[in-house]
Amino acid sequence: MSSDPLAPTPAHKFTFGLWTVGWQGRDPFGDATRPALDPVETVQRLAELGAYGVTFHDDDLIPFGAGDATREEAVKRFRAALDAAGLKVPMATTNLFTHPVFKDGAFTANDRDVRRYALRKTIRNIDLAAELGASVYVAWGGREGAESGAAKDVRTALDRLKEAFDLLGEYVEQQGYDLRFAIEPKPNEPRGDILLPTVGHALAFINALERPERVGLNPEVGHEQMAGLNFPHGIAQALWHDKLFHIDLNGQSGIKYDQDLRFGAGDLRQAFWLVDLLESAGYEGPRHFDFKPPRTEDFDGVWASAAGCMRNYLLLAERSRAFRADPEVRAALAASRLPELALPTAGDGLAGLLADRSAFEEFDVDAAAGRGMAFEQLDQLALEHLLGAR
Amino acid sequence: MSSDPLAPTPAHKFTFGLWTVGWQGRDPFGDATRPALDPVETVQRLAELGAYGVTFHDDDLIPFGAGDATREEAVKRFRAALDAAGLKVPMATTNLFTHPVFKDGAFTANDRDVRRYALRKTIRNIDLAAELGASVYVAWGGREGAESGAAKDVRTALDRLKEAFDLLGEYVEQQGYDLRFAIEPKPNEPRGDILLPTVGHALAFINALERPERVGLNPEVGHEQMAGLNFPHGIAQALWHDKLFHIDLNGQSGIKYDQDLRFGAGDLRQAFWLVDLLESAGYEGPRHFDFKPPRTEDFDGVWASAAGCMRNYLLLAERSRAFRADPEVRAALAASRLPELALPTAGDGLAGLLADRSAFEEFDVDAAAGRGMAFEQLDQLALEHLLGAR
Amino acid sequence: MSSDPLAPTPAHKFTFGLWTVGWQGRDPFGDATRPALDPVETVQRLAELGAYGVTFHDDDLIPFGAGDATREEAVKRFRAALDAAGLKVPMATTNLFTHPVFKDGAFTANDRDVRRYALRKTIRNIDLAAELGASVYVAWGGREGAESGAAKDVRTALDRLKEAFDLLGEYVEQQGYDLRFAIEPKPNEPRGDILLPTVGHALAFINALERPERVGLNPEVGHEQMAGLNFPHGIAQALWHDKLFHIDLNGQSGIKYDQDLRFGAGDLRQAFWLVDLLESAGYEGPRHFDFKPPRTEDFDGVWASAAGCMRNYLLLAERSRAFRADPEVRAALAASRLPELALPTAGDGLAGLLADRSAFEEFDVDAAAGRGMAFEQLDQLALEHLLGAR
Amino acid sequence: MSSDPLAPTPAHKFTFGLWTVGWQGRDPFGDATRPALDPVETVQRLAELGAYGVTFHDDDLIPFGAGDATREEAVKRFRAALDAAGLKVPMATTNLFTHPVFKDGAFTANDRDVRRYALRKTIRNIDLAAELGASVYVAWGGREGAESGAAKDVRTALDRLKEAFDLLGEYVEQQGYDLRFAIEPKPNEPRGDILLPTVGHALAFINALERPERVGLNPEVGHEQMAGLNFPHGIAQALWHDKLFHIDLNGQSGIKYDQDLRFGAGDLRQAFWLVDLLESAGYEGPRHFDFKPPRTEDFDGVWASAAGCMRNYLLLAERSRAFRADPEVRAALAASRLPELALPTAGDGLAGLLADRSAFEEFDVDAAAGRGMAFEQLDQLALEHLLGAR
Repeated sequence: MSSDPLAPTPAHKFTFGLWTVGWQGRDPFGDATRPALDPVETVQRLAELGAYGVTFHDDDLIPFGAGDATREEAVKRFRAALDAAGLKVPMATTNLFTHPVFKDGAFTANDRDVRRYALRKTIRNIDLAAELGASVYVAWGGREGAESGAAKDVRTALDRLKEAFDLLGEYVEQQGYDLRFAIEPKPNEPRGDILLPTVGHALAFINALERPERVGLNPEVGHEQMAGLNFPHGIAQALWHDKLFHIDLNGQSGIKYDQDLRFGAGDLRQAFWLVDLLESAGYEGPRHFDFKPPRTEDFDGVWASAAGCMRNYLLLAERSRAFRADPEVRAALAASRLPELALPTAGDGLAGLLADRSAFEEFDVDAAAGRGMAFEQLDQLALEHLLGAR
Repeated sequence: MSSDPLAPTPAHKFTFGLWTVGWQGRDPFGDATRPALDPVETVQRLAELGAYGVTFHDDDLIPFGAGDATREEAVKRFRAALDAAGLKVPMATTNLFTHPVFKDGAFTANDRDVRRYALRKTIRNIDLAAELGASVYVAWGGREGAESGAAKDVRTALDRLKEAFDLLGEYVEQQGYDLRFAIEPKPNEPRGDILLPTVGHALAFINALERPERVGLNPEVGHEQMAGLNFPHGIAQALWHDKLFHIDLNGQSGIKYDQDLRFGAGDLRQAFWLVDLLESAGYEGPRHFDFKPPRTEDFDGVWASAAGCMRNYLLLAERSRAFRADPEVRAALAASRLPELALPTAGDGLAGLLADRSAFEEFDVDAAAGRGMAFEQLDQLALEHLLGAR
Repeated sequence: MSSDPLAPTPAHKFTFGLWTVGWQGRDPFGDATRPALDPVETVQRLAELGAYGVTFHDDDLIPFGAGDATREEAVKRFRAALDAAGLKVPMATTNLFTHPVFKDGAFTANDRDVRRYALRKTIRNIDLAAELGASVYVAWGGREGAESGAAKDVRTALDRLKEAFDLLGEYVEQQGYDLRFAIEPKPNEPRGDILLPTVGHALAFINALERPERVGLNPEVGHEQMAGLNFPHGIAQALWHDKLFHIDLNGQSGIKYDQDLRFGAGDLRQAFWLVDLLESAGYEGPRHFDFKPPRTEDFDGVWASAAGCMRNYLLLAERSRAFRADPEVRAALAASRLPELALPTAGDGLAGLLADRSAFEEFDVDAAAGRGMAFEQLDQLALEHLLGAR
Repeated sequence: MSSDPLAPTPAHKFTFGLWTVGWQGRDPFGDATRPALDPVETVQRLAELGAYGVTFHDDDLIPFGAGDATREEAVKRFRAALDAAGLKVPMATTNLFTHPVFKDGAFTANDRDVRRYALRKTIRNIDLAAELGASVYVAWGGREGAESGAAKDVRTALDRLKEAFDLLGEYVEQQGYDLRFAIEPKPNEPRGDILLPTVGHALAFINALERPERVGLNPEVGHEQMAGLNFPHGIAQALWHDKLFHIDLNGQSGIKYDQDLRFGAGDLRQAFWLVDLLESAGYEGPRHFDFKPPRTEDFDGVWASAAGCMRNYLLLAERSRAFRADPEVRAALAASRLPELALPTAGDGLAGLLADRSAFEEFDVDAAAGRGMAFEQLDQLALEHLLGAR
């Protein structure tokens, strides 16, 4: 292990999807700018950069529609590369969006046979995920949605979505796999509107499943920010519900198309508060980067971008530690009455509250209104720590 | 009752907040453009327009900080006006945002005494709500949030928010009130980010409460649209969870400040699909308008705007009925395979699905991919019905 | 010519890009769902549907990098199809975005040789455009931009952009072509931020060119709406500057990725006001649809979607005529003092204004403030006309 | 002058509006949380903090509708305070939005007498601005706009807007004032859509005026970001047109209501690139902060927030200098071919370009496409400089 505190090591649990550094740069208006990457090379390069593991969609590893021989060979090569490099596969997922058969969705496609096919494709890759030791199986329903109002009956679609997760949960239990599901919400793109558009909608949905304990979230920075939502707030609520099973780190510059910038690019202050939250909340899962090196870049740029993701996480963690350790910050948190928020509002119970005339009848509302919250002083300290100026 | 199908009657269950037609036009950059409206006049005018009921914040009816005599007189006058006009009060709510004491929130203010005060203020108005026959008590936590990252520990704040709803539920049960709570989500404004920012986040939160059955939602059109979310989709999910306890109808022109336009203004196509959903789903609660007549208007404009809300709802309901009754639409829905979405994906169970070689091994994926969904034809029919062109 | 007022005819000047109905459905997350369309078939089908003309990027017609023989053959077949069908080519444009060589832009690429290549590719297609009788040459600089702050020096890039338009203008004049340029602004996608992001920025830029009279705008509905801007307002300003040389009609559901929905889908009320403006302002250029039939559709859906674009334009034009002809609307416009806006504010000149005590010293500001604008009544009339309810 | 490079001094030209630190915290949902500030105290406090000057709306200094005696007294006290503190008044502006008389706009109100009143009110304050030595007069047309489509004929409104600026220019010339106008664009709020919504639209409009040389821009960070636009890009275009007459610095967290956060809060990376641009472009005008200390704050928070604005600017300027001086950055800029962007594309003229077969016929497009742009390495260096990590 390096003695440089900003050098990534497997202990940091940084992971990358094969499809991230392997993205060839095809976008809605342009062709690929980079050749395909061999998953074996990806494994080697990520290991050299200090990553802990790698994740994959079925089709990242095995070409869609490949026969059994091709499949076995691909898995064998991949496994050998993993072993050689010492990388883990903590998560896997299914590609239910690239092939045109999924153009109207997978688990909620209007076509029943597409839904059945999607379930079987998923189950097949769950077997591989389990075989490779993954403990989280991500489900991004990017095509579950619609562009027009009558095209999807949302309540019926949610019935189908529930049916799918209930079936997959049944399968995993039957097989005895130690695998949990993580739903990845997104508001739109590639569909006009996607079902379970935010962290909140997905959390709510999970409660309606047969095995809610087996299903959690895989929130992605950019996806919540595409709805203008505060990502650290969403993660805090996911943690509060004990549902942060996995996380996708990247960058996004506001409400627009899905950018998948490297972590640290985009909204830097939210990135800081996110790292501060993950580190202070004791989140123990992988720090998974789901980004796309811009298509302007060659492979040097790709690997520089991957290294940047990890370095930025470590830099922000360093800034967060300094912020939390600074006595002036502690004083400022007290001045902003954060410790008071941790006190029960009615430790005296409902009866106590109702009987307490100082709480209402004799409460000096104007005096309370006049107390400043000192949030600006606190936020300025945070900003200066972020800038490395303290 | 009028024989004009577009004339509102109490049977349509249209309701308005006192604060809607009574909005004086104060905005962040301008002073009031209209004088205050007497709630008694509001009741009379709304009844004349065909409304079913009226709703209120405590401070709409009784000036903040008023003594008991003022309070009793205000309630007495209001009740007399209601009786005379035959209007109901199906919902009430608390103003926990106007007074500066709530500048950092109410149930999640860092100041514990502000939290206690907010609970007592709420309980006081719950008593009045019950007395006036309301069955839904709305909670909009507009000030529960933050502008900067350290100012609010979101997980701790959610603890406090849960504590508040648990206490209020306990109170209502103790009193034997037939009253349910409806949380109203909003992403931002007046706080930089508000807790429970969307329908989804609020639905998820409710599941963590002690009495989840007593708490549901009061979604507002513009609030979800401020996050770029599809409002009818959100309502469909709320209905799917049996949590649509109340609804706030208005208009919003995209992601920007909260506009509170009259219903029908803003995103007309979502308004159509919303009415189509509410009417077809058998939603039986009030159709509550939470809008603000623009400050350019005098009182003639105010009442015209209120009348427009109701008329637009009825017009859209008429268009929806014609759409659903049109044989060409039924054929188009079938061509888009909507009926197939209602079929269980795996009526044969997991075992059946796994054994079905036609579902995967022998599935003709390219043939399935080639089938068009015919959504454009369906959506064009919907648009022409909306335009009254069929 | 059909006697159905909603049947499109060439007199309506509806045009379509080859790339619109020909879009194969490749998106950032999915492969093509439709085979390529032969431009000859497109010409035939559009003519049958009642279109006036067709437009193209060089690479739509002639494969990128094709040799001269292929090129000549493609042009010959296309021209024959046009002649047979009676379709015009009022506009053409260059594809400066699909090939990876343009990954950092074309006229503003950091690589000088890419810039030179882009100019030559454009000039080559200008020759073809002129040969086919086009009078407008569109320039969409979709790749002129950046994802990160240091990657592009914007002032220097604007120098290069000006240089490019000045050179192209010089070329067109040298050749004696009767061709004007129309810049198409867009805020982002495929670049993180694009130069000349809105109608306004492009209008301002044109004033800095050597031949401003030869350059105008080709605004696209969805592009302005991706920045949350009011499209009819932008078109009104473009008309005010005499710079509406061409227009791209489509639909967009708010601030998100570029949707290119059929015209009428998305923001229906803005579509109405747009048609109302184009028709009342005497805009005489083509009504050009730049849309993408959703990838859920087969070719039946593609042609239905194209037909829908035209039908919706005609329906909205019909609604606009009825609105403007309605005596109640005229009265409402007067009540809203629209005629007064057309009066000069100071017909008496500066001296008159300064001398007029009734304008300031003796002005009854409160009386003026109290006059309602009656905008809600006017807007309700407009909405009812749109709904076909009057 | 302090020897602390982060201590603001008048040489830094930091200025503040009276209405910024003086904002009382009234928002659409809440009453004032702070008492009014005496302008005299503001002047003293800002001087102590190191500011260079102060700016004002007429009504900030002299209550709306005040008589001459009150007016003279207010001006006298203010001038004495300025002299004592050594503060300048480089800019002034008119409040054409708070009073209800401006509810439908000022220069473009449908009511002609409101337009005349607005012009006279402006002229009166121009006299005061000139008297106090201001060289820039800002015009924010916050009420010039509409919420509904027929309420404003935009082309006619632009006629009126032009008339207003032409008259004001005539007045200023007549008086011989050394005063230029700076238009401040904003997309929406308080109107649903505002005329001249972005930097671009305002730049274009100026070209249509009688005295374009006398009119430029006063762009505000948050206003452009409310449309999702890249602020440094907009400023670069304004500089390119020589139209950056003044600037409003603040912070905004994405597309939502107007937040007016202190400078540095909100989008920190855009703040960095903005300072980098202003400093490297040699912008010599005031660095004017147009922010609102959050209503959670008492006066300690207000002054801390004002101090934070200046400190953050200086910190970012320091980071920018280090970035530009770093030899690795220079190498990275060269690797990204930024110097090549500064070369004319066709120094050989049109004829040279057309004759150059290496530019097209013999251009190796695939080789060019394969060259990586190295933007990720460059942006990572920038990010590390921003974080103070290099």
